[in-house]
Amino acid sequence: MSKIRLGIIQPEINENTLENLTRYSRSIQSLAAKGADLIVLPELQNGPYFCQSEDVANFDIAEPIPGPSSDYYARLAKENNVLLLVTLFEKRGRGLCHNTAVVFGRDGGIRGKYRKMHIPDDPGYYEKFYFTPGDIGFKPIDTEIGRLGVMICWDQWYPEGARLMALAGADLLIYPTAIGYTTDDDPDEIKRQREAWITVQRGHAVANNLHVVAVNRTGYEPDHTKATKGIHFWGSSFVCGPQGEILAMGREDAEEEMLVEIDTERTDKVRHWWPFLRDRRIDKYGDLTLRYRD
Amino acid sequence: MSKIRLGIIQPEINENTLENLTRYSRSIQSLAAKGADLIVLPELQNGPYFCQSEDVANFDIAEPIPGPSSDYYARLAKENNVLLLVTLFEKRGRGLCHNTAVVFGRDGGIRGKYRKMHIPDDPGYYEKFYFTPGDIGFKPIDTEIGRLGVMICWDQWYPEGARLMALAGADLLIYPTAIGYTTDDDPDEIKRQREAWITVQRGHAVANNLHVVAVNRTGYEPDHTKATKGIHFWGSSFVCGPQGEILAMGREDAEEEMLVEIDTERTDKVRHWWPFLRDRRIDKYGDLTLRYRD
Repeated sequence: MSKIRLGIIQPEINENTLENLTRYSRSIQSLAAKGADLIVLPELQNGPYFCQSEDVANFDIAEPIPGPSSDYYARLAKENNVLLLVTLFEKRGRGLCHNTAVVFGRDGGIRGKYRKMHIPDDPGYYEKFYFTPGDIGFKPIDTEIGRLGVMICWDQWYPEGARLMALAGADLLIYPTAIGYTTDDDPDEIKRQREAWITVQRGHAVANNLHVVAVNRTGYEPDHTKATKGIHFWGSSFVCGPQGEILAMGREDAEEEMLVEIDTERTDKVRHWWPFLRDRRIDKYGDLTLRYRD
Repeated sequence: MSKIRLGIIQPEINENTLENLTRYSRSIQSLAAKGADLIVLPELQNGPYFCQSEDVANFDIAEPIPGPSSDYYARLAKENNVLLLVTLFEKRGRGLCHNTAVVFGRDGGIRGKYRKMHIPDDPGYYEKFYFTPGDIGFKPIDTEIGRLGVMICWDQWYPEGARLMALAGADLLIYPTAIGYTTDDDPDEIKRQREAWITVQRGHAVANNLHVVAVNRTGYEPDHTKATKGIHFWGSSFVCGPQGEILAMGREDAEEEMLVEIDTERTDKVRHWWPFLRDRRIDKYGDLTLRYRD
């Protein structure tokens, strides 16, 4: 199967998890009715982006997988006969949590998980406090519609992850994400950051000749500690083709439900013109496993 | 030294090498007089892009380094008190040739060489016939204005090369190149290819927080074998900053002499906001040295 209809939900997320989940249920139903094969939600879609501060109370919302949230999404996948990709704050063991993507098949079964490998930590994004770095590695998830190279947010800045997924036969790359700007930054810097985020992912598409899907949240979420001015999530969820060409782009400041058809056979075609994988100098790449070449 | 004035020469190149070299001499003098610290010429600037066909006669133009061409450029560097980056068809031994970048210092001395690592081979770009893959590896060149991550053309599609240069402390990345389109392609495909070429290099800038400089030729060069319709080199030489932001962009279809000031201290600033190098998962990158993960 090379033609895939991607459903993208770019929500504004509020404090009321039940209300968020109910809205997703409606959006999933609507996109599935329009023919979506796979629906992708943004990173940690259940509620506000809690990593804006370090608060031990937040560990209480972590859940095992399977668990209540994953059961809920599994049911939505099955009821709508659609694949579904969500991210959950996974409680793997006592005091051992991950930022984990889960892919459900049309029957509601878990096709696979990806545990976020690169964990950020900068003002407003204190993820190293909450998330143990993933140990599954860069392993794509096999599904009835293809092999999905699922990664999460901060991973999107790393060409290594994209390449490892491509080398493992991923048919496309998918990044649920939660990224935005703070009003402390001037407008030029905000523009540079958003464009850098789009550009680096389009770059992964080009370097690996794969479609790339990025799904972000939108809207403002305050920092309850008042340490920062909160985050304006910049939306801009997008799909690009294997030459980095933009196929669909969501608005910055509004919710979106998008349905985008891609054809992963395009990857073969582009790789025949531009056979990058043929010419990799694997004999000289060993130092990529060094921290620094000093 | 963090502020660098880059001189870029984007020429239309004709069959008369002496005339090409004379024009470069004038351009170098002019850019140096305007304050350029480093002047970059496109890939294999001495004459037409001879790799459009496989012709053993072309091996006769390969030269040792040092040799007549490198002596000529060394003198230009010294006379104009400027650093100079050129690429030469290097005859390293009998029947052993490379596509080699050479950096000359202000005194005309050779600061270092880079031998093209990734060698393309597709219709119109038969480089595997002429060029032995480089064995110096991804080793930046130390100069009086900084550590230059010099690579060549096809290398620009490979995130691995950019990353290895960054890990070795490169202050910026520089790609002399010779790339264009054939009129066999439809206008949409031409646009996608040119934009993919720009995007993937901007992506290296973002992923490594480094300035990137790409210098291409412009104009049409026929394929004397008539096997293809020849190449329209698409110019578009550009400089982007460490967030991928375009700082200067040459025209597609006209010669250019550009002078662009950059400040490599910007790399530190951006790396403090976005500490990508801090979070690389070197424990899970080992498979990057595999041909394919099957």
